[in-house]
This record gives sequence, structure tokens and C-alpha cells, in this order.
Amino acid sequence: MKIQSPPGMRDFYPEDMRLQNWLFDAWRRVSLAFGFNEYEGPIFEYLDLFTLKSGEGIVSELFTFQDRGQRNFAIRPEMTPTLARMVAARANALPRPIKWFSIPRMCRAEKPQRGRLREFFQWNIDVLGVEDPLADAEVIAVAVAFFREIGLGLDVVIHLNSRPVVSAALATIGIAPEENERAFELIDRHDRLSPGAFREMWDEVYGDRVSAANLTSFLAETPQETCLEMAQQAGPEGAAAAEQFQVLWQRLADFGVQDSCEFRLQTVRGLAYYTGSVFEAHARQGGLRALMGGGRYDNLTGLLDGPRVPGVGFGMGDAPVVELLRELNKLPRLDCELDVFVIDADSDLFSESLSLVDNLRRHNLRVDFSYKRIGVGKQFKQAAARGARYVIVMGEEFTKRQELTVKNLTTGEQQSIPVEQIRRDPKAALESI
Amino acid sequence: MKIQSPPGMRDFYPEDMRLQNWLFDAWRRVSLAFGFNEYEGPIFEYLDLFTLKSGEGIVSELFTFQDRGQRNFAIRPEMTPTLARMVAARANALPRPIKWFSIPRMCRAEKPQRGRLREFFQWNIDVLGVEDPLADAEVIAVAVAFFREIGLGLDVVIHLNSRPVVSAALATIGIAPEENERAFELIDRHDRLSPGAFREMWDEVYGDRVSAANLTSFLAETPQETCLEMAQQAGPEGAAAAEQFQVLWQRLADFGVQDSCEFRLQTVRGLAYYTGSVFEAHARQGGLRALMGGGRYDNLTGLLDGPRVPGVGFGMGDAPVVELLRELNKLPRLDCELDVFVIDADSDLFSESLSLVDNLRRHNLRVDFSYKRIGVGKQFKQAAARGARYVIVMGEEFTKRQELTVKNLTTGEQQSIPVEQIRRDPKAALESI
Repeated sequence: MKIQSPPGMRDFYPEDMRLQNWLFDAWRRVSLAFGFNEYEGPIFEYLDLFTLKSGEGIVSELFTFQDRGQRNFAIRPEMTPTLARMVAARANALPRPIKWFSIPRMCRAEKPQRGRLREFFQWNIDVLGVEDPLADAEVIAVAVAFFREIGLGLDVVIHLNSRPVVSAALATIGIAPEENERAFELIDRHDRLSPGAFREMWDEVYGDRVSAANLTSFLAETPQETCLEMAQQAGPEGAAAAEQFQVLWQRLADFGVQDSCEFRLQTVRGLAYYTGSVFEAHARQGGLRALMGGGRYDNLTGLLDGPRVPGVGFGMGDAPVVELLRELNKLPRLDCELDVFVIDADSDLFSESLSLVDNLRRHNLRVDFSYKRIGVGKQFKQAAARGARYVIVMGEEFTKRQELTVKNLTTGEQQSIPVEQIRRDPKAALESI
Repeated sequence: MKIQSPPGMRDFYPEDMRLQNWLFDAWRRVSLAFGFNEYEGPIFEYLDLFTLKSGEGIVSELFTFQDRGQRNFAIRPEMTPTLARMVAARANALPRPIKWFSIPRMCRAEKPQRGRLREFFQWNIDVLGVEDPLADAEVIAVAVAFFREIGLGLDVVIHLNSRPVVSAALATIGIAPEENERAFELIDRHDRLSPGAFREMWDEVYGDRVSAANLTSFLAETPQETCLEMAQQAGPEGAAAAEQFQVLWQRLADFGVQDSCEFRLQTVRGLAYYTGSVFEAHARQGGLRALMGGGRYDNLTGLLDGPRVPGVGFGMGDAPVVELLRELNKLPRLDCELDVFVIDADSDLFSESLSLVDNLRRHNLRVDFSYKRIGVGKQFKQAAARGARYVIVMGEEFTKRQELTVKNLTTGEQQSIPVEQIRRDPKAALESI
């Protein structure tokens, strides 16, 4: 019986896995450089945890199931609910600031179709317990540092906005703050909808106050300073938001990433729980899909009966990043890494050569050899195919003088070295050639 | 609304995650040293993939669900079916030998009770496409190398056996080879059942030929050589099995791990698909739970309509390893790692000090600072709490002479260094103190 892999799920063969690990290593390295600590949660949670945050509408996007005790679970579609649960459970014990990252695996019940993944990995960065826009700036800086780390520093731009600032700006064209949730949802979908579809949806709710066309040009054309002035003049909350945004903007300069950021009034994010800054990463060349999306959420743990803990963070999926690297022809070259391939030129020496393999591995070298007793030439071919840096040949010289031939496959140089010298300090012996 | 983590699932707070990563890093490092390549598969598969290998009985141990297209899926309870599917799909294209490893996350629908995990991680090592017992030996050697790597080299023993050899031995006490599947299942459960329960189950099937008591002493007391002789005299298949076992035993010596292995006739493993060697790792101090279990399976991909591909491999769970380390008081000390904590002694210099933080991070140092503008003494306390190796203070000296105070928190030594020197080559500047 032939069984396929499930639709929308990926198999990672070794060459795919090397790329995946390269990406994970870069996420992890940058997170640690910024002083973030890694955490993880379970692959599934009580279904309630997700509906509590996102409403019953989320259920159709989830893989849900019961155990024999009739408990309802769902495979996690995002990490934020788990983060909120974990922080709420220890809210008073965790030292502040809480600077955490994770690289969770997660699933969404997308309709199976080409290019739609049902399973993906997502880098999550969050700072909790800090109101200061310094945290927002550092979260954005770690994202920019990652793009720089993988060679996309000049290819990616961060679109940055503040929900209270947009709110004040929208008020000047007749949309009251209490109507924002729906407006943000529509504006968030603006770029992905056809102009006609957007017009229809927008005008149905807000057409009596501002037409879709006027809204679109208002969002596109109002410069950063004007927006901040509108906020300053919108009462104490607006003024505070304008002030916060200006601090954020200064901190982005301090962290050396302001050049990668642009104020963009259209960027509002669709989720209800953002309360302050909102931001997305996009390829400068265009493309609708955000590479990263995040913002400030100041009441997430409150949902879980925890104390109020302010937070700011983002999620970045693996697939869009890899896709952009591929489009820009910037995928890394990842050869299979092997330090040494050991060759036996005489099959009577095979036990002896396995013992050498064992010795080299104990020195933390990556070592392999041929499973078949075949000619030296064929073994050299295997060594090259595996991308080995060195070959060590055990043959006549070993029988006669206890010496081994060591060849550097990069330079082509080779040398005879006493076996004892190699056994004692193989790294030094290899590096000498 | 308060929501707990699901029963049997673990949250990994940063201190737990550091231990988890330490374990994964060791698994990965040892796998790569032995020339294995990493792969991964999806978190869930078609339910059929699991029932095909293990029968319908497996379903009650799985978390199963449907998508909206009425497809049946299950979260993976083990990695071998995925491995078989992936290899079968590319059987003719993959270069041999296939030496693969993986560290999958998986779930089993255990009854929720104390100490029973529903979610765990498992190191999988497999060699496919090789009949030679050399592969069995290398698979065992990589497990022993891992135990050595984490300081358990002398605490763990590998119990080793061969199913065709047991088969020949059992034939001498009246149990025919075609009855082995059930006999192996019972023998595998022997150590975990009470003597009475085992006697009852055994005698019901085989009591007319050999009593449970006689079987138990036969299994415990027949030495390795006698068993191999029994196999040699049991016809060509038995003789081949004895020969294979002797080659395996020699290769274990070549790889330097024979001292960690013991022949044990009772070790047969419960699964139906093993066809040759079988082995388990156990703590020498005793304890029923195997730390690792594996063996040779020569017809796994055949189940999936792939060509016959011989294989040998094992799985090792994360929890039993960590539990043993804890019992033996051998858990590693994993401090939070931070290279530098930057302190501003004058809050007017904060922008300047953030720019230094940015500079140090760009040199791949792990750097953090205080989110709050507080006294130098308090910032030093934060640095110590975070386990920083160095502190850099930006204060009066910077304003007057463009110098920074660098303190090595391990030795207590400190020194003033020009900021330009630190910015140019921070690693060298730090190491000089």
C-alpha cells in the first residue's frame, strides 16, 4: 500500500533539513545576541485557549480533536496564547523584563492547495513587563539584525505604525475610535483585496463618512509628522501616543536600524489585541505577503486571569523568508560537512582503520568511511561526494612504518604522518597540511 | 478564565529549555561526528501509515482527527513509519548507505497520570541499504558515544541479542520458529510483569512444552557461546545468524564499544518488524525502563510498496535520559550565557550606550543592558543575575576621555579602554582583561 505525505505538510530530506537548520541557527544566534531566552510549549493546547483569544471563528482554522476523557484540544496555530498562559502562570515569579524567544512548529487547517502550507515554523520574539518603547525598538532591531545576518539587510523594510496614532488620524476624517476594530480589519486587508472589493466592503460601513477612494489616498499620502500632530491634538491619550512614537523612533536610531524602518499609516495589522505600535517586514521589491508581523499588546495575560502584563513581540514564518532568499538568488550554499573520510587501501587493515575512525570521532571530528571494501579510487570518490575536507589513507605505509597518508581535498596537498601523532592530536595534524 | 497546560504535556521555561537544548545539541553533535545526516517529517501523518505498520490496535494510543475533507490523520507516535515512507518515495534516488538521524517531537494518547508524558522527543538513528552487521555495530557505537558524551559512559550498558539466534535457542526447548512472534511479545514483557502474571500468560500458550520457570532460567543462564552453537546447528539460516552475530561482536570491538555491550538472551523487543539484531540501553544500576531500543528490520519499506531496503536503527526518548542524569546527580550546570552587560553610569549617555550595545551585538557577542535607568550598583546586580562574563560601564571617563571601564566578572579585574578600540575589535579588547 502506497501512502503519501499529508497535503500541505513538508518532508525535510537531508538537503532540505540543512537549509532549515541554517535558518533556525540564524534565528537562535541573533536572539541570543540580543539577550533573549528560549522557551517552548506543547504542540497542542486546550481548544479554549485559542477561542478565548480569537473567538469561536478560529475553530475552522484549527486541527481539533478529543482524547478519551472527552477533553477538547487543538494543535497550536500560533504561539502567543501559549506564551500568555505560561507567563500568566508565573507572572509574579518571573524576573523582568521577560525577553523570550521560541521557534515553534505549528499547524493551520488551510484548504490543501499548491503553495499553502498546513504546517510551518515561526520565530517568535517577545518582551513582556515593559511599557517603555525601548522594548518595541529592541524587538524591531532583532528582526532587522536577523535580515542583516542572512544577507537581506538591504532587501527588507520594516513598515511601522501606531494604532493610537492611526486612531487619531482616522478621527479627523470622521471615523470614531470606537469604530476602529472593524476599520483596522478592513485596512489590513486593503492590499490583498481588489480595489472594487475593498470599495464595496468599506463603503457599506463607512461610506457615509469617507469614501474608500478618499480613505486610500488619505492613508497613502498623510506624512508621519502630520499624523503625529493629529495625535498630539487629539487629547492626552493621543499626545501620549505621539510622544511614545517619537521615543520609539529615536530608539530605532540608537539601535542603528532606523534606516530600515518606514512609517506607514496603512499598516494596522488585523488582530484585535494590538494596543500600541504595529509593524511588518516586507521585501523592498514588493510582494503582498509580510515576512514578519507584530506589535504591542498590553492586555494579553489579562484574558487568562493573570495580572496585566504589557508586551510587544512578533512572529516570522520560515517559508516566506526562504521564498524571498530563493527569489533573490541568495540561498546559502550548504555542503554536507564531513571533516575526514578514512580509506583502507588494504582490507586486512579494516579493523585497524575503524579503530582510527573511532579515535577521530572521540576528538569531535565528523568522520565517515566506506561500508563496502572497495578500491581506493572508489573510496576517494565517496569522500569527494560527501564533501569531506580531508582523506586519511591507511595502507602499505601503515604496515611498514606506522604512517598514514593525509590529503587535504581543498588544496590537494598530501603528507605522510605517524599514526601516533594523528591519534594524539588529530586536529593539529590535519591543520598542518 | 484560567487555562492550564494540557495533561501530560510539558512547558519549557527558559531553564528547562536550556537543558533540552543541551541534550539536543549532544544528540546532534554525536550524530554528525558519525557521519549521519538530519531529516524531519510532518507532525501528523495519514492514520493508515501507522495502522499499516502496527495494526488497528495502535489507534487507541494515538491522537486522531479529520480535516474538513474527511481525511483521517494522527499525530505521530514514532518516527519509523515516516522514515519508511520517505525512503520508499525516493528509494532509487538516495545514495547508499542512507545514514540518517532525526530528533522528532511526538505524542501518544497515554492516560493522563503523574509521570506519564503524552508528548516527548526522541532521537532516531537509522542506517538503511546495508546488510553488513557493520551498520548494526555503528548504530550501537553512536548510542554509546552519546552516553559517553554526556558523562554516562560507565553508567549505561547495551543489552544485545539476535532474533534468529533466540529463535534457534527456543527451538531447542520446543518452541518452533513460527510461534516466535507471540513468544517474543511475552518475553519482552517478562521484566515488567509480576512472576505470577508472566507464568499465567506464558503457560496458557506454551505450558505444554516448557514451563515459565524453566523458560526464565533457560533465558537467564544460557551463555552467549552456547546460544551461538545452537544457532550454528539449526541449519543454514541459523548458521548465517551466528556468523552475523560474531561479525557484529568483532565490529563492536573495532569501534571501541564492546565493553559497553552484553549479550542478553532475554532482550528480544516487542515489535513484530525486527528481523535480526535487537538491543536496548539500560542503566547499570537497574531500572526497568529502557533508555534506548532498536534493532534490525529488513522489510520495513516493503510495507509501503517500496523496494526491499534493509535497515537497522534505534529510538531514544528525552525523558528517561534526563531522569537518569537527575538520579545520578549528573545534570549539567547551565548558566544563562551573556557575554557583556552594558551599564550607563549617566542616563544622558543612554543613547550612546545603546549604540555600543548594537556595535557589540554586530560582532556576534551576546549583549544585554538594563531597560530601566537606575543606579550603577543595581545595574551591576542585574549583570551578575544574568550570568554576564563582562561588564562595560559608560560614564564620566567616556565624557572626558572617550574611554570605557571594562570589568571581567569572573576574575574581578577591570581596566579603562578607549571606546574606539572596543568598537573596532571588542572580542580582543575583552579577552585582554
